[in-house]
Amino acid sequence: MISRVMTAELAEHAGQRVTIAGWVHRRRQLKSVSFLVVRDRTGLAQVVAEGDLPGEENVVQVTGTVTASSQAPGGVELVKPEIEVLAEPGAPPPFDLYRPVVPAALPTILDHAPVALRHPLLRAPLEISAASVAGFRETLDRLGFTEIHTPKIVASATESGANVFGIDYFGRPAYLAQSPQFYKQTMVGVFERVYEVGPVFRAEPHDTVRHLAQYTSLDAELGFVAGHRDVMAVLREAVAGMLESVRRRAASAVSSLGVSLPAVPAEIPAIHFTEAQRMTSSDEPDLSPAQERWLSEWAVREHGSEFLFVTGYPMAKRPFYTHPDPARPGYSNGFDLLFRGLELVTGGQRLHRHEDYLTALEERGEPVEPYEGYLQAFRYGMPPHGGFALGLERWTARLTGAANIRQTTAFPRDLHRLSP
Amino acid sequence: MISRVMTAELAEHAGQRVTIAGWVHRRRQLKSVSFLVVRDRTGLAQVVAEGDLPGEENVVQVTGTVTASSQAPGGVELVKPEIEVLAEPGAPPPFDLYRPVVPAALPTILDHAPVALRHPLLRAPLEISAASVAGFRETLDRLGFTEIHTPKIVASATESGANVFGIDYFGRPAYLAQSPQFYKQTMVGVFERVYEVGPVFRAEPHDTVRHLAQYTSLDAELGFVAGHRDVMAVLREAVAGMLESVRRRAASAVSSLGVSLPAVPAEIPAIHFTEAQRMTSSDEPDLSPAQERWLSEWAVREHGSEFLFVTGYPMAKRPFYTHPDPARPGYSNGFDLLFRGLELVTGGQRLHRHEDYLTALEERGEPVEPYEGYLQAFRYGMPPHGGFALGLERWTARLTGAANIRQTTAFPRDLHRLSP
Repeated sequence: MISRVMTAELAEHAGQRVTIAGWVHRRRQLKSVSFLVVRDRTGLAQVVAEGDLPGEENVVQVTGTVTASSQAPGGVELVKPEIEVLAEPGAPPPFDLYRPVVPAALPTILDHAPVALRHPLLRAPLEISAASVAGFRETLDRLGFTEIHTPKIVASATESGANVFGIDYFGRPAYLAQSPQFYKQTMVGVFERVYEVGPVFRAEPHDTVRHLAQYTSLDAELGFVAGHRDVMAVLREAVAGMLESVRRRAASAVSSLGVSLPAVPAEIPAIHFTEAQRMTSSDEPDLSPAQERWLSEWAVREHGSEFLFVTGYPMAKRPFYTHPDPARPGYSNGFDLLFRGLELVTGGQRLHRHEDYLTALEERGEPVEPYEGYLQAFRYGMPPHGGFALGLERWTARLTGAANIRQTTAFPRDLHRLSP
Repeated sequence: MISRVMTAELAEHAGQRVTIAGWVHRRRQLKSVSFLVVRDRTGLAQVVAEGDLPGEENVVQVTGTVTASSQAPGGVELVKPEIEVLAEPGAPPPFDLYRPVVPAALPTILDHAPVALRHPLLRAPLEISAASVAGFRETLDRLGFTEIHTPKIVASATESGANVFGIDYFGRPAYLAQSPQFYKQTMVGVFERVYEVGPVFRAEPHDTVRHLAQYTSLDAELGFVAGHRDVMAVLREAVAGMLESVRRRAASAVSSLGVSLPAVPAEIPAIHFTEAQRMTSSDEPDLSPAQERWLSEWAVREHGSEFLFVTGYPMAKRPFYTHPDPARPGYSNGFDLLFRGLELVTGGQRLHRHEDYLTALEERGEPVEPYEGYLQAFRYGMPPHGGFALGLERWTARLTGAANIRQTTAFPRDLHRLSP
């Protein structure tokens, strides 16, 4: 390995001659003195030099003496440098990566993602995203969940029908999975508590700031619940663990983006769907984006919480595997979690009796045959269970305040974009 | 949550009246007394009962008094039980899940995966798989790697051409990604050290015991290496971390399968490709399965190691992005890691200079255009770097001695199988 000190640790080496390595983040050649700012994965370091210096995005290795400097990032700089260029770029970057504010519009950024993401403000959401996933897994591991990997190629476009990508599977038609829903429920029969972090695919024909054709879904499912509130309690733990991990693992990304991390109440406030309707003077069977925003603001005002559960969505608006509320049959044991004005998570208790599945499919006029594999799990005995799915990019966007979900993933896929 | 004690903790509650919940693993009704064995995610517990009892795979909740019994698993059993059935199966399982040896052939197991995987011996490889991935991430997190999520839908079938699945992407042709190779290299420019655990897709037209159409790839890539040996050193750490995690997190799966976990030498023995040729009296430009087996046995014999690196594969047999050995230009800085007779990992140092990529593509008669997005990373300055990819299912198969890779994943996809 190239023997080097990371820039974040430079101050610990004051007075020593050390080597750093990274990219030339900025070159400033003045009359009497010149500066290089070198960027590595931990931060920036200033080098004081003379003469002609390599330009931005040259990959360099710099050996110099660590010297105190109140002007430099981290309070130290490298002086008397020997600079070696490890790789020369073939062209200057499409925009200056050293500007404190990104001097480019989103299409330019996305077209040049391989270099644009080197900008500290553009890579920061990806750091927050990685830290969030680590916290999700950490929490569920602690709670006895087992990680699973399920098929992304499926035989039928069952779960929601529309918006699936077709694929040529050895000459047979197949589809990209829109969610691991059926598989994670099935695996409750094996491990009781399972999670999966993986890609899901939606052939979303609308070009919006909220939708991607591929996104990362954080899925969990657990058995032996008494009802949907047990699922909500686990979700509360997962979200708290994600935020704690972001605080611990992505502190510099949080601070450079100026992200305010929400507190998670010990119990997230929850209102029933009918109550939400009443409060927003609506009789529609679903909540509009405007209602979601209003309810979110209400939760902040009344409960000091940026999170709000809405429970008991009408059965007619939930998928066939949703468990009805035994006390109010037209309503479900399904819930949404709203966060900062938007639905972040959908979840609920599922049906668990084989005959209930047969009845639910029949009532919706759906054939049983495409669900054969899935229904096996219930035919052979399944406990009361439920789960939830959280879209990673949507989470990161709400957390960082990104105006467009495309800023929260390295190489977004949408109606128009298939590269880089 | 259903308030219960896990069966593995039952012995701690001797003398108390407690509730357990799970599946009826086995029912034995004798003349004077009957037994239920209840299975939950932590193990088995015996219940002593009377009269008619629910049959296998009923989901039950049992309240009883914990009593010492030298005959029972864990040394205790539940007596004076009250049994509540939470869900009744619609049919008996296709084979007895309580038999110590699985009484079914692979096709039956795969067709009935939702219930078959409940057999402790069939779920064990999945526990080892989950523990392995946790150890992989844990190790790379500790070494300063960042987790990434890359596109599984790509614009061109570049990396190896053949064996790709075509997809209809909003009316345009696209392909399922065969590996995150290009993206993980690109992200070295952003985070220096990255990893991804995710699905990859190969339209493998051969029906073998070693190939799947979808598998989980454990990918890592790191910058600022002095050469491929730095990559090999990180891989050694990752493999050691995976095994340590399996030992810690999947102890009962390891013991029920009788898996012998290999030791990882502080330095895994490595031989050059030309040496491997000489030792096996071959002049072929690649190693055959028989040669790989012979070399593995040699490493056990000579070095007491079940792992063996073969380095310096001929350039002609490696992909265009492979870095040549500066001292022996016809040979590469690429390596394979053999484990128990089979290639487990492929890796190496990559080219990092933009002009080297242009030359490499030209020499292979390949157009530059389909690689535009990828080449951006190098155009804007990339450090010397390298990485590796490890197939999770192949790893689990070698570790557990599974004869068929389909035994190491819950719902395999292959030439013939698209469900469940």
